[in-house]
Amino acid sequence: MTPSSSILKGRVAFFATGNVHKFNEARHVLADFGIAVALLRVKALEIQSDSLKAISEVSALDASKRCRLPVFVEDAGLFIKALNGFPGPYSAYIFRTIGVRGILKLMKGVKTRDAYFKSVISFCDPEGPLECFHGQVDGLISCERRGNQGFGFDPIFKPSGGPTETFAEMSIARKGEFSHRAQALRKFAEWFKSVR
Amino acid sequence: MTPSSSILKGRVAFFATGNVHKFNEARHVLADFGIAVALLRVKALEIQSDSLKAISEVSALDASKRCRLPVFVEDAGLFIKALNGFPGPYSAYIFRTIGVRGILKLMKGVKTRDAYFKSVISFCDPEGPLECFHGQVDGLISCERRGNQGFGFDPIFKPSGGPTETFAEMSIARKGEFSHRAQALRKFAEWFKSVR
Repeated sequence: MTPSSSILKGRVAFFATGNVHKFNEARHVLADFGIAVALLRVKALEIQSDSLKAISEVSALDASKRCRLPVFVEDAGLFIKALNGFPGPYSAYIFRTIGVRGILKLMKGVKTRDAYFKSVISFCDPEGPLECFHGQVDGLISCERRGNQGFGFDPIFKPSGGPTETFAEMSIARKGEFSHRAQALRKFAEWFKSVR
Repeated sequence: MTPSSSILKGRVAFFATGNVHKFNEARHVLADFGIAVALLRVKALEIQSDSLKAISEVSALDASKRCRLPVFVEDAGLFIKALNGFPGPYSAYIFRTIGVRGILKLMKGVKTRDAYFKSVISFCDPEGPLECFHGQVDGLISCERRGNQGFGFDPIFKPSGGPTETFAEMSIARKGEFSHRAQALRKFAEWFKSVR
């Protein structure tokens, strides 16, 4: 089913995000479930918290209230063990300031390179309860940047159990086999289909 | 005037914070104005924003609503020029994760060491408008940590126009001559005295 035929059948999920890369990843995964994704460019409230779930839930409630629509939001972060979870829930800000170069400098000479990417999707229907879906992928921080696909810290993250490519060396489809976001999206899609 | 006599006269400002160092600095500065400070240990809402003013305003509104009291909150950050403003509004989280050591590693070999500390105090009275007060101090990031007073990134910040000590090498009174927080506190105190 193509996205446009899904829209005709009314199976559309509204994604509140300002990040076009996230939107493309969502569109790609949800298409496999016959769900079309509509981009809602609403600046939803984001709280400061060490919990992605808390950030995501508050955003979904706020976005849904503002738009008076059932919407989903996605919040994600890269958590590096040797840096006590940094950049974590503030990955977007930290990417904008010190970037990939800053993370590589912080990790210079550090042997323990374990890290994980985590994603939390929250869906809020003004007339229903809040639903949350999680995805996580373990991996390693590479010693140099590689690849130019994806976004954010993708060029320095190599997922475990896969080949030696970073996320930024993978196509959107390939990244979707491993990624935290794709995992959360698939859980969301299964639930969404079951209730719509 | 001592804090206890201020309380008897009813000139008390409620400070919503979980940071005892900030509380002690506030108590020290406001005592000079005959204002006692009461610590309110309320976890006020903190939003994600690049604007300290926006973060501070939302916190004050939330804290005042929860406590049903006129309260002030203070939000501060260290902004390093060579790191595009990092750690900025997320200084507390970044201190907890990569700490002073992380900042020194990021600044290794960097010649431009200019930085500033900024503070925004927001006061919210459930029955009145919101008021904001700013303070800023320019300085340099030192090449190594020095001193064990103060808190956060104080051991690596040397204010301009002062001697060569870092904030962490200064007593609370000495730091108060320069600091962003003391500047904002003095502006707040003058206004508070004029309306109470």
